[in-house]
Amino acid sequence: MSITPAVKTILDKYESDNPGVKANLARILMQGRLGGTGKLVILPVDQGFEHGPARSFAVNPPAYDPHYHFQLAVDAGLSAYAAPLGMIEAGADTFAGQIPTILKVNSSNSWATSKDQAVTAGVDDALRLGCSAIGFTIYPGSEHFFELVEEIKELRAEAASVGLATVIWSYPRGPGLSKEGELALDVGAYAAHMAALIGAHIIKVKLPTAHIEQSEAKKAYEGTDWSSQADRVKHVVKACFDARRIVVFSGGAAKGEDQVFQDARDILAGGGNGSIIGRNTFQRPRDEALAMLDRIVSIYKGEA
Amino acid sequence: MSITPAVKTILDKYESDNPGVKANLARILMQGRLGGTGKLVILPVDQGFEHGPARSFAVNPPAYDPHYHFQLAVDAGLSAYAAPLGMIEAGADTFAGQIPTILKVNSSNSWATSKDQAVTAGVDDALRLGCSAIGFTIYPGSEHFFELVEEIKELRAEAASVGLATVIWSYPRGPGLSKEGELALDVGAYAAHMAALIGAHIIKVKLPTAHIEQSEAKKAYEGTDWSSQADRVKHVVKACFDARRIVVFSGGAAKGEDQVFQDARDILAGGGNGSIIGRNTFQRPRDEALAMLDRIVSIYKGEA
Amino acid sequence: MSITPAVKTILDKYESDNPGVKANLARILMQGRLGGTGKLVILPVDQGFEHGPARSFAVNPPAYDPHYHFQLAVDAGLSAYAAPLGMIEAGADTFAGQIPTILKVNSSNSWATSKDQAVTAGVDDALRLGCSAIGFTIYPGSEHFFELVEEIKELRAEAASVGLATVIWSYPRGPGLSKEGELALDVGAYAAHMAALIGAHIIKVKLPTAHIEQSEAKKAYEGTDWSSQADRVKHVVKACFDARRIVVFSGGAAKGEDQVFQDARDILAGGGNGSIIGRNTFQRPRDEALAMLDRIVSIYKGEA
Amino acid sequence: MSITPAVKTILDKYESDNPGVKANLARILMQGRLGGTGKLVILPVDQGFEHGPARSFAVNPPAYDPHYHFQLAVDAGLSAYAAPLGMIEAGADTFAGQIPTILKVNSSNSWATSKDQAVTAGVDDALRLGCSAIGFTIYPGSEHFFELVEEIKELRAEAASVGLATVIWSYPRGPGLSKEGELALDVGAYAAHMAALIGAHIIKVKLPTAHIEQSEAKKAYEGTDWSSQADRVKHVVKACFDARRIVVFSGGAAKGEDQVFQDARDILAGGGNGSIIGRNTFQRPRDEALAMLDRIVSIYKGEA
Amino acid sequence: MSITPAVKTILDKYESDNPGVKANLARILMQGRLGGTGKLVILPVDQGFEHGPARSFAVNPPAYDPHYHFQLAVDAGLSAYAAPLGMIEAGADTFAGQIPTILKVNSSNSWATSKDQAVTAGVDDALRLGCSAIGFTIYPGSEHFFELVEEIKELRAEAASVGLATVIWSYPRGPGLSKEGELALDVGAYAAHMAALIGAHIIKVKLPTAHIEQSEAKKAYEGTDWSSQADRVKHVVKACFDARRIVVFSGGAAKGEDQVFQDARDILAGGGNGSIIGRNTFQRPRDEALAMLDRIVSIYKGEA
Repeated sequence: MSITPAVKTILDKYESDNPGVKANLARILMQGRLGGTGKLVILPVDQGFEHGPARSFAVNPPAYDPHYHFQLAVDAGLSAYAAPLGMIEAGADTFAGQIPTILKVNSSNSWATSKDQAVTAGVDDALRLGCSAIGFTIYPGSEHFFELVEEIKELRAEAASVGLATVIWSYPRGPGLSKEGELALDVGAYAAHMAALIGAHIIKVKLPTAHIEQSEAKKAYEGTDWSSQADRVKHVVKACFDARRIVVFSGGAAKGEDQVFQDARDILAGGGNGSIIGRNTFQRPRDEALAMLDRIVSIYKGEA
Repeated sequence: MSITPAVKTILDKYESDNPGVKANLARILMQGRLGGTGKLVILPVDQGFEHGPARSFAVNPPAYDPHYHFQLAVDAGLSAYAAPLGMIEAGADTFAGQIPTILKVNSSNSWATSKDQAVTAGVDDALRLGCSAIGFTIYPGSEHFFELVEEIKELRAEAASVGLATVIWSYPRGPGLSKEGELALDVGAYAAHMAALIGAHIIKVKLPTAHIEQSEAKKAYEGTDWSSQADRVKHVVKACFDARRIVVFSGGAAKGEDQVFQDARDILAGGGNGSIIGRNTFQRPRDEALAMLDRIVSIYKGEA
Repeated sequence: MSITPAVKTILDKYESDNPGVKANLARILMQGRLGGTGKLVILPVDQGFEHGPARSFAVNPPAYDPHYHFQLAVDAGLSAYAAPLGMIEAGADTFAGQIPTILKVNSSNSWATSKDQAVTAGVDDALRLGCSAIGFTIYPGSEHFFELVEEIKELRAEAASVGLATVIWSYPRGPGLSKEGELALDVGAYAAHMAALIGAHIIKVKLPTAHIEQSEAKKAYEGTDWSSQADRVKHVVKACFDARRIVVFSGGAAKGEDQVFQDARDILAGGGNGSIIGRNTFQRPRDEALAMLDRIVSIYKGEA
Repeated sequence: MSITPAVKTILDKYESDNPGVKANLARILMQGRLGGTGKLVILPVDQGFEHGPARSFAVNPPAYDPHYHFQLAVDAGLSAYAAPLGMIEAGADTFAGQIPTILKVNSSNSWATSKDQAVTAGVDDALRLGCSAIGFTIYPGSEHFFELVEEIKELRAEAASVGLATVIWSYPRGPGLSKEGELALDVGAYAAHMAALIGAHIIKVKLPTAHIEQSEAKKAYEGTDWSSQADRVKHVVKACFDARRIVVFSGGAAKGEDQVFQDARDILAGGGNGSIIGRNTFQRPRDEALAMLDRIVSIYKGEA
Repeated sequence: MSITPAVKTILDKYESDNPGVKANLARILMQGRLGGTGKLVILPVDQGFEHGPARSFAVNPPAYDPHYHFQLAVDAGLSAYAAPLGMIEAGADTFAGQIPTILKVNSSNSWATSKDQAVTAGVDDALRLGCSAIGFTIYPGSEHFFELVEEIKELRAEAASVGLATVIWSYPRGPGLSKEGELALDVGAYAAHMAALIGAHIIKVKLPTAHIEQSEAKKAYEGTDWSSQADRVKHVVKACFDARRIVVFSGGAAKGEDQVFQDARDILAGGGNGSIIGRNTFQRPRDEALAMLDRIVSIYKGEA
């Protein structure tokens, strides 16, 4: 596998990382139909943990089987598949070498009594399962944010020391943030910036709205127009070391196809690196999901 | 010991586990009268810890002696015997090699002031006592759930690294769940799914009722009929990676024989792997208990 | 030193313990005037920590000197001497080899703000001081019970790995227990059972009253008469794996000699292994204490 | 590089430190236009973490790029550049050997729910990134002060053991301090003294006001006039072991140039070692920032 | 250096300690003008941490310099010098071999929000700085007492394993103690006894008043007269294993010279081993302090 100039340009920005980490980033960036373009689409399946199995899979029962998701990611030509320990274990041998995997090492659930997550797997697990990266969620704004940061600080260092990349899901929430504020532009950019500061190789945030949450930040945003989603994406990407880090955006709950495609176009236009898209795919019948992913991939390839 | 095709089929689903863990699962699945069928019945005796010795054993005083339970499990041709440290230590030498043991490594008690458990033994203990697996209880929904998950995450990794299997007792409880909800179908399936996600090799849950607890989950269950216990078992088994993991069901407090037998028939019909049955056996006189277990085994063999 | 059949019978019940632990149990069981009988009397001196030096020793000032207690235990022909780190350190060299010692590794005090204890010494200390066992207090029912259990779980494993025995003081207290309930029969039996379950080699509890505390346990005790202290002792001993573990009873605060002797007779009659008796000895003048201990020893030898 | 007598005098005061730590202090003290004078100016860029990216960089967008700050520090001939992990990683290779770096290993943010910081990087990171020192913030007066101290105690020991220096940001805040009191002279001197006591090699505090906060301290300050900022600097320096430790002062929020220059003159006059100046530089256009830094450097050289 | 019979008698009481610890106790007991007498005077300078630099040193500005205190202790012929990390580091090389040092490894401060201390240095620091002992403060009665005990338990074991002695400052305070009670005789004796129990080689307490605080302890003190300070000292010394441990007393805040001398006479008469005296010396001009210390030393030598 020789890497493309587009991928080389991205890897060069990780100037302090070791060859092992870069090789794993390259595995993801060279994988699938977007391989070599510098764009990527990741399939994440941790909704069973976060929302429960029936809410996640009953609408499309074959999705109860962990193999279903590996196969979907492979068949759709995606860049990587991310899931918690049990889901990866149940297919890692069958699909070894077919698609890079990201081991989600912490998780919450519907009954959580605090804005925190439990660490459910470790770097040793990622290694023995042949994963390319670990995934970790932080909640900027939570009373548990410092603990989450100290956990990922340790896990990231251990992962990097054995050549694994780190993907951080940065989801703002907590007593200082309104519900609307969790998706605010200033908040999203701040959350992405903190993920970059603590050393994420790939940063995963939600597509932000035009709302500005923090009164102290209002001045910095004064006189600018944030009605364009592509501009908002660009702002978040700028907050990630002026585009020196890979940033992918999630689409949230299942929604109409048109909106999903428009999101992808905006991410592309704003300089984002791609999408991480779960419920919008595996909660549709497989054929529909493959068709939708085909279209998304085409958008990122500039063909749709 | 050569394993049967039925057992081979089960072991193959543990595709990422090492031969040591699979060998211990095989020891349990090939043991006793159900050996080779892919079904299993486990005798658990941790009620002395949970409810106290008199409430557990006064009704059948020979059961105060730890040897009693080893002998009962052996004589009834069961698959494994599960108990806390002291109970295993008091008989592990006498009964070495006669029955696979599961060391229950955490416990609560009647005076617990929080929905938590204390870790009472370790993987080293399981090894030196010749156990096949460790057992661990989690309380999904509890304020201590994340801590419990992080404890079993460490213990499971250590156990697997030395070839021991992990059995997880998943008992939902906590501020977000009603008393009725602890036994709800959606809750039980979710609890079983989380046990699978954190890497349980054998999942132990209670038989669920037809109640649906979570309002967000109602939609996923809409228009379906859950009046059949066998269907409910099937739903829980589906939530365990579409039957890729061994699931056993507990019967709860001592009850009438007929109900115990019906439970076994429903577990079998729903595709569950078996029963874990404690008070319903050791709180009966030995002869009655052996007769009851003989019948249960026959049911799982499809002979009753 | 060849051990007697009575001691051999006891040691054989510790079937999963290594020869090192058994050798130390044998050292205690073969020591002093009760050596070889299977009965034992232990002198514990941790009251300086628990109640302060003046309340403990002012009534008999020579007892301020740690050597006093070593000498008392030796001269009375007792089985072992138990005390916190400083007390053992101050005499371990002078009395090396004269009497088995039990290093009490946690302690509370009169000003404690929670029902907890501080770990004050470790297994390394026990080894370098030539001790035969470590001693540890648990408070079943306390909000800190799980922490205490997790502490002794670690200490016990470490101690056993180097051949030291573990003695557990099990003292129920906490929000779910009334003052009267702390001494209740059901509570004492439960507390002793939990000590056995977490792996105590020697269990130390208080002599229980006939009170039954737990409403859920009432049924198990229905229709039985617990007015005889010997019967109550027998019940507690049964709760310790049907007499497979050594159980010693404490007498509590200083009281009349006649009651002390009657307690010993009841412990003997109920199948208990002996007494652990502190304030009733060292708070009397040495001559009186020696006379009293002589009588107690005689009772356990069946001579009084 | 041979060091100057001025630098030698400073290094000699670190009499118990190993040659590795002294070599790194020398690297900083011999760097840039102030190299060899015993004075220093540090560029710190952790405002992205503390206040968010837009509030920090929107006013001067090139500053979103981590390389911008390395280059600014190099071009201005400063002594060192301090930033959190991500910022250093993004430029450490490009600028290797061009400017000493200080890895800020803990950080807070705008949504923090307690007066604490999260540890975000370690000594290993500082080593692999070629840093000369670690930086750490303590909050004297906070409910979390003891934890912060215990964290830096460990990090400092580890850093020194591999030859890295430790810079402590000492920012008083907490329930016992008024807002005005956080900048009080007695409070600032106390905060600097505690940083020295826990082993800081370089102490970073804010320029104090003439306010005296603590009633118990009033007597010690009675009859003295603290209206001169240079005198206040001298008092803080005296509190750092009578000038045996390097003390640098921060200027706080962006303010007028004249005040910035006056601060530098007062620090020089009071015997302080220099400035740590962030927002006042990178929030200005690069040309203005370079001109301002040129002037500050000249002041410290006694040329302006 | 051959030790005197008086010192030999003391060392022999540390019968379970290793030669390394005894050698360091000997270094202190053979140092200075009281060397060989079995008496000692220690200079402690941790008030900068506890009360701040201005309250500690402004009255005698040369005391801002850490070298001042080393020199004072050397010139006065004292037995040892105790201080926190930074203070020792700033002079350990210059004064190496001139006076035994005690590294104070935990500290509190004026703004502490709990009755606790932060660990600020470790045994490794004590070794590399050539110290003879570590010093640690416990607060019997505090909600944090158990944590403090568990900290010193670890530190003491580590220190002893490398031949360092342990000095414990035992200062009662907490919700169960009145302000007057913190200095009560029963409380002081209890606090000293606990320090001995957890393994202190040198115990440091405040001179107690005749007040009896604990109602439960009143009986033990009934009918005795505690109006003599020498008798109170004797009682505390008795509580330290009947004088088997070195006990030194502090004088508290700066006070009149006559009282300081009377305190020393009472400590001598009561069998105490000496004084630990800080503010009463370094808050006086050096000449006055040397004269006062000369007198105190003479008192302990029986010459004044």
